[in-house]
Amino acid sequence: MSLIVQKYGGTSVGTAERIRNVAKRVARFHRDGHQLVVVVSAMAGETNRLLALTKELSANPDPREVDVVAATGEQVTIGLLAIALREMGVQARSYTGAQVRILTDNAHTKARILEIDEARIRDDLAKGLVVVVAGFQGVDKEGNVTTLGRGGSDTSGVALAAALKADECQIYTDVDGVYTTDPRIVPEARRLERITFEEMLELASQGSKVLQIRSVEFAGKYMVRLRVLSSFEDADAASTGTLITYEEDDDMEQAIISGIAFNRDEAKISVMGVEDRPGIAYAILGPIAAANIDVDMIVQNIGASGHTDFSFTVNRSEYQKALGVLNAERDRKHFEAREIIGDNRIAKVSVVGIGMRSHVGLASKMFKALAGEGINIQMISTSEIKIAVVIDEKYLELAVRVLHKAFELEKGPDAA
Amino acid sequence: MSLIVQKYGGTSVGTAERIRNVAKRVARFHRDGHQLVVVVSAMAGETNRLLALTKELSANPDPREVDVVAATGEQVTIGLLAIALREMGVQARSYTGAQVRILTDNAHTKARILEIDEARIRDDLAKGLVVVVAGFQGVDKEGNVTTLGRGGSDTSGVALAAALKADECQIYTDVDGVYTTDPRIVPEARRLERITFEEMLELASQGSKVLQIRSVEFAGKYMVRLRVLSSFEDADAASTGTLITYEEDDDMEQAIISGIAFNRDEAKISVMGVEDRPGIAYAILGPIAAANIDVDMIVQNIGASGHTDFSFTVNRSEYQKALGVLNAERDRKHFEAREIIGDNRIAKVSVVGIGMRSHVGLASKMFKALAGEGINIQMISTSEIKIAVVIDEKYLELAVRVLHKAFELEKGPDAA
Repeated sequence: MSLIVQKYGGTSVGTAERIRNVAKRVARFHRDGHQLVVVVSAMAGETNRLLALTKELSANPDPREVDVVAATGEQVTIGLLAIALREMGVQARSYTGAQVRILTDNAHTKARILEIDEARIRDDLAKGLVVVVAGFQGVDKEGNVTTLGRGGSDTSGVALAAALKADECQIYTDVDGVYTTDPRIVPEARRLERITFEEMLELASQGSKVLQIRSVEFAGKYMVRLRVLSSFEDADAASTGTLITYEEDDDMEQAIISGIAFNRDEAKISVMGVEDRPGIAYAILGPIAAANIDVDMIVQNIGASGHTDFSFTVNRSEYQKALGVLNAERDRKHFEAREIIGDNRIAKVSVVGIGMRSHVGLASKMFKALAGEGINIQMISTSEIKIAVVIDEKYLELAVRVLHKAFELEKGPDAA
Repeated sequence: MSLIVQKYGGTSVGTAERIRNVAKRVARFHRDGHQLVVVVSAMAGETNRLLALTKELSANPDPREVDVVAATGEQVTIGLLAIALREMGVQARSYTGAQVRILTDNAHTKARILEIDEARIRDDLAKGLVVVVAGFQGVDKEGNVTTLGRGGSDTSGVALAAALKADECQIYTDVDGVYTTDPRIVPEARRLERITFEEMLELASQGSKVLQIRSVEFAGKYMVRLRVLSSFEDADAASTGTLITYEEDDDMEQAIISGIAFNRDEAKISVMGVEDRPGIAYAILGPIAAANIDVDMIVQNIGASGHTDFSFTVNRSEYQKALGVLNAERDRKHFEAREIIGDNRIAKVSVVGIGMRSHVGLASKMFKALAGEGINIQMISTSEIKIAVVIDEKYLELAVRVLHKAFELEKGPDAA
């Protein structure tokens, strides 16, 4: 008998019929003797509908009250799922974040979980009840309703699994696991049986949208065994999805490269011919940060004759704003530069794999594959388990396909 | 400076635009220096939508979970109204029933309020905040969400007014007060400036739908000054609506008859030629009660030759069920009767007035007016301040008009 936390997202509970399907799967696990805590999101579209109502009344609605409104989405789902379970003869009880008590800080609309009182849930589980908990929400120490921000239900699930020391946290979504890359681009893309937290973090932050990045960090920190599965498969199918592990399993055939992520939401800005002196990076990026613009990749080339070129990427929607900030700074003589140029028709492609630590030559293999198709690399950035390149947007699909093939990702770890 | 509790129903908060109108009125009272607690219902249609979802999943959904789902309707409205108020520069804070703490028993979907902790509200009022509270809901002593049943938001408003010893509880609805009768039937119907609780109770239970009957009982018990007003008049108009008072004001020109109520949702059942013996009423009505069928009027005529006729009315939707119960009882020889007959095309018309206590001859005036139009009276039932008759449904409008005229209700108390 295991204690399993299952989390179902908005599309998985989008209609009464789908809620009934979720209940069927939960009932099967319960029948098999497992203890179950089920975390659910709001029905698909509900959170957007509720937030739109708040926006109708104020362009800048009070965050405390936005949370009061938004938290109702998940509250509806927990009641409905408990009803569906009872209809199938499974005793179930629902709890809001406040009722559990999922204590958070008071940063409304983006609160962080501080503590979970798991006593009530343990009592119910001991009585054989299935416990249904509202994701995305909590309560601060004054009793105000808080929400964790978009995708926060994943975090709720992982946090509950950590508090309860659950054997596994299963994240049900509309895909059946983590793939080597997007199957819409590479039909041969393969579902990964396992992936490490570090790889998952790199894939997530590089644009793979399967899991919310905070929940992955949380799972890694508290060593929660995390599994991504599809909620649209037959409830009786024994799909295994993708297991996200916190250890590098020695028994496991280790793939060198796990997957290829990509992102077309970025834009590149280059400040050309700036003085190569200490403080220049801060002179350029300080005002960008002050304007609340997130920066992703940062590259600075070796300078010649006391000058250098400095490039970075920002979210495409903030491209014009970032250019405006830099031009204003230069006009105020906060730094000197020959030219400030940008390009918002770029894409980022990343090759991610824990095996990169112990294998040399992967970068050159990547560059060779891209060169073979005549794809020019505009920027390069690396981490211990990732190589990311910026290329012209129009080559994105081609680059992903070429890299998927070059690293033989369709073949799986045994063959790699 | 007064402490005023205002309650707005579902149609008054049915859209963002209407919520903004409510906020305007609240802001005006606040500007005038009043302390305000605002109780709101779910946006029109929301409660039905939510209950329909629970019914999609179970014909007989668990009441605890139905309350979890249904309570979200009001929670959305409190957040939205607080946002609208803040947008107008009025500091406001919302509370769910659980947050206030409106303690109820655990009779889910029809809970009764036991106690209200008004400390948090008083603190906020002292700071100049407008307090927005979710109607219809509370929390039991285990922390489970409860709801008070249909129309429960009126009760929430009155209970808060009682707990806070508010100067007035204003119930905003889609009519601008209590009328002598339905203006759709009698265009001369007149808005009553005042009415006593007893009269309001008789009018409400006789089919006037302005206020939920429990809230009126509650207001009478705790001597809450209650006022019914329209939420659709200009927020700046100083309408006075109808004041429902707990005393008979000596200064007030007392109308003998306050109003005429009617109800076409009933059906009549007569058990003819039953033995006139002790226990016969229980033999007939006991099984009806056991089948959970509510009985309204009960009439038994003086018997002749040891037999009597026994009649009563039930809700029209339970007419067939009630007939079935009685026939089965007779078949089992639990009582003997010559004939069991019924009629579901009847209507009940009631004349209500506190002045009836001290004025004789009102019944005969009523019967004479009906006879003058050839309307046959099928049943008669009286209370201290009411005379109700059952007539053929087709004469309903005619009877109401004739009685309104006979008692000169269009003229007001000064002329009566």
